[in-house]
Amino acid sequence: MLTYSFDKAKGPMYLYLYKCIKNDILSGKLGPNEKLPSKRSFAQNNGISIITIQNAYDQLISEGYVYTLPKKGYYVAALDMMPGTAVDAKVDYDIKVPKEDVYECDLSSNRVNPDNFPFSIWTRVSRDVMSNMKEELMQISPTAGVMELREAIAEHLKSFRGMLVDPNQIIVGSGTEYLYGLIMQLLGREKKYVIENPGYKKLADIYKQNKIDFSYAALDDNGITVEELEKSGAEIAHICPNHHFPTGITMPASRRYEVLAWANGGRGRYIIEDDYDSEFRVAGKPIPPLFSIDACEKVIYMNTFSKSLSPTIRISYMILPVHLANRFYETMSFYSCTVSNFEQYTLARFISQGYLEKHINRMRLYYTKQRQFLMHIIERSALGDKCRILENDSGLHFLILLDTDKTDADIERSLRDKGIKIKALSDYYFADSTKSKHCFIVNYSNLDENRIKGTLKEIKNTI
Amino acid sequence: MLTYSFDKAKGPMYLYLYKCIKNDILSGKLGPNEKLPSKRSFAQNNGISIITIQNAYDQLISEGYVYTLPKKGYYVAALDMMPGTAVDAKVDYDIKVPKEDVYECDLSSNRVNPDNFPFSIWTRVSRDVMSNMKEELMQISPTAGVMELREAIAEHLKSFRGMLVDPNQIIVGSGTEYLYGLIMQLLGREKKYVIENPGYKKLADIYKQNKIDFSYAALDDNGITVEELEKSGAEIAHICPNHHFPTGITMPASRRYEVLAWANGGRGRYIIEDDYDSEFRVAGKPIPPLFSIDACEKVIYMNTFSKSLSPTIRISYMILPVHLANRFYETMSFYSCTVSNFEQYTLARFISQGYLEKHINRMRLYYTKQRQFLMHIIERSALGDKCRILENDSGLHFLILLDTDKTDADIERSLRDKGIKIKALSDYYFADSTKSKHCFIVNYSNLDENRIKGTLKEIKNTI
Repeated sequence: MLTYSFDKAKGPMYLYLYKCIKNDILSGKLGPNEKLPSKRSFAQNNGISIITIQNAYDQLISEGYVYTLPKKGYYVAALDMMPGTAVDAKVDYDIKVPKEDVYECDLSSNRVNPDNFPFSIWTRVSRDVMSNMKEELMQISPTAGVMELREAIAEHLKSFRGMLVDPNQIIVGSGTEYLYGLIMQLLGREKKYVIENPGYKKLADIYKQNKIDFSYAALDDNGITVEELEKSGAEIAHICPNHHFPTGITMPASRRYEVLAWANGGRGRYIIEDDYDSEFRVAGKPIPPLFSIDACEKVIYMNTFSKSLSPTIRISYMILPVHLANRFYETMSFYSCTVSNFEQYTLARFISQGYLEKHINRMRLYYTKQRQFLMHIIERSALGDKCRILENDSGLHFLILLDTDKTDADIERSLRDKGIKIKALSDYYFADSTKSKHCFIVNYSNLDENRIKGTLKEIKNTI
Repeated sequence: MLTYSFDKAKGPMYLYLYKCIKNDILSGKLGPNEKLPSKRSFAQNNGISIITIQNAYDQLISEGYVYTLPKKGYYVAALDMMPGTAVDAKVDYDIKVPKEDVYECDLSSNRVNPDNFPFSIWTRVSRDVMSNMKEELMQISPTAGVMELREAIAEHLKSFRGMLVDPNQIIVGSGTEYLYGLIMQLLGREKKYVIENPGYKKLADIYKQNKIDFSYAALDDNGITVEELEKSGAEIAHICPNHHFPTGITMPASRRYEVLAWANGGRGRYIIEDDYDSEFRVAGKPIPPLFSIDACEKVIYMNTFSKSLSPTIRISYMILPVHLANRFYETMSFYSCTVSNFEQYTLARFISQGYLEKHINRMRLYYTKQRQFLMHIIERSALGDKCRILENDSGLHFLILLDTDKTDADIERSLRDKGIKIKALSDYYFADSTKSKHCFIVNYSNLDENRIKGTLKEIKNTI
């Protein structure tokens, strides 16, 4: 008969007993198919209750250490397969996590300055949602996002972009990267894609990582050209016609129609139009997106709240042409929406109560001032004579051409050593990086006004 | 000289002028390469300011309708490519959005009852985060999620699951479906996958939609078998060993070691262990997950806060073995984390301040009571003699075997017509659906106590 001392037992008695028996099984003290004592006799022998033993046996059974034969009793399972060493084996390891460098001044960052996020209103709207929408918050969101948010986005697009969109064409997701993944599934992973060169580096990373066949198309001064699109042999073109990153090019109307005509030239051809910073075009009326002048259902429009609110709120959306929306609902409705209901409803209210419009107007003014301030400071600095600002008149960054003989990489490296992060335009070329030498990107969405003078001085001393 | 009447002008003057000129260009009234009046003479002629004209011209230039020649003036662009009809073309359309059926009683739902979500604490923690963590909230999250949340999850796993995990092994994402997508990229899309039959239907949908080569492996009473794994020829097995959905099977220890031994039998073999409802195993000590007894870095562990909090908060995580964590950081660090900082920090605080533990304990008690209540009601109902409850002793659902000659599909259909949603176990078989006839799933996570008696009566009358 098994006997255990319960003097040292910590925690529930049954758990202690379970561990004792399990240890004896693992150590071989109790052999395969050995009969365990009946609950009654075991209880009497050890002075514990039958319930305790029942619980311990049940746990051993559910983990497979013990089996039971009806009307016969409890037996030790055959554990031949069990590698005795694995249980307590430890793995030596060393995880190499990429380190975030910390900079005194980061001209490449698209972070939002915490002072500029509308915390008090966001908090208030969010609290209202949690108090008043408990039922909705617990209801599973449709794949495309909750209707209240999609209606609010449709309204916003109407007033801000002059776009007429059915809320059912809008698909909400946790970031544009996630939505790219959905598009690949929707249009076909086997298709050939083409992206702009220079362009958004992450896009190439995503296509590479997903083993998508893609190529690069060079731009001229008006953006991507039809010749390059044709040359690529691709069916899906991923472009940024309204304020190209990083060059700042706005594709003129004539080129837009050329590109649409290209898309119309093949049944499987589509354009993914990324309109990431449309809200912050500073001068003039924002240009109507390709999506709005596309009469043939060839354009998927993408936008995000990363620029208008913060990149740390992961909400983006895409607008599908009608036949693709139908294909999406038919084939991909099993997916869950990736944005929490809490934030979907908060954003919906934030938009429909007019706060987004107010916030964007405030930020437009702020960014215009930051832009002017920065250009003014540069012109008056010692760097002023050694550079030319390439003004593209919109967005949250401009380009600066430095008068230097050093390589872009050398300049980046020297400045990094001084705690300044700046990215060259040449970094955004996927091939032929001899182009656009000495041209650098200056983001001002999170400009530290106290450090900019020192930064400009360092740049001057470096080039 | 162009002359426009400004009497009817609404909104900014420059916008009106821009529209007038654009219309004349599009209608052909102004021909390609036609010179536009100088700003000065235009202004004098129309009695408006030069700035207004400058703004209108700038907008026309940025949209490509007009070009400028230095020291010469402004000219209409050649718009041969522009299909005149497209601008105002409308598309007739009809988007078919899948309709959500509404039921009187839904025994298939895994929704959380709004009364059970800890709204007041969640709101308080969320508000605290927004007041006190402005700087952190605006800082871009690492790809794997913010460290505070991953540390909190590691602590939680230690106390709840006895798991020892480095926070850097934890990758946070907006739902397990999203994380599956990352795993496909990490392990290789070209690999062959195998999933359990019966099993989680969405998993098959996801693999199909992503064009992944996968097959099904039948279960015996102890879960997936090594024979089936071998037969599948797959390298990656996606399994649910701790409380299989929908059968409720808990894989015993001996089988666990067999499955681990299978994984060790090939270099590229891995197990994805889905532990979706581990917190709610009702009786006994939860079984240690495969991940904890895996000494050879073969198991990816997945879990979610869908069950412990709500499926409408989209936060899940996976734990990677060390060498896969390193591969992840090397090759996939360019991805943004898909969960908003606001919810990451709220959840981190919610866990570290002990609220999750309290909530889980409260819910365990609640679900145990619901389970007992429901079993009691069933036994005492008229259905009691016509069914057998298959108790798997854990989780948020059990199975019920109905004494009937009707097909599962007929029963589902008849009940659907009466406003009752119930799913048969056979629905979760991917092939060979003759198995497990008359067995149905009863979820009690969102049980409507007022409707259950009526529902049971209807089931009785239907079978």
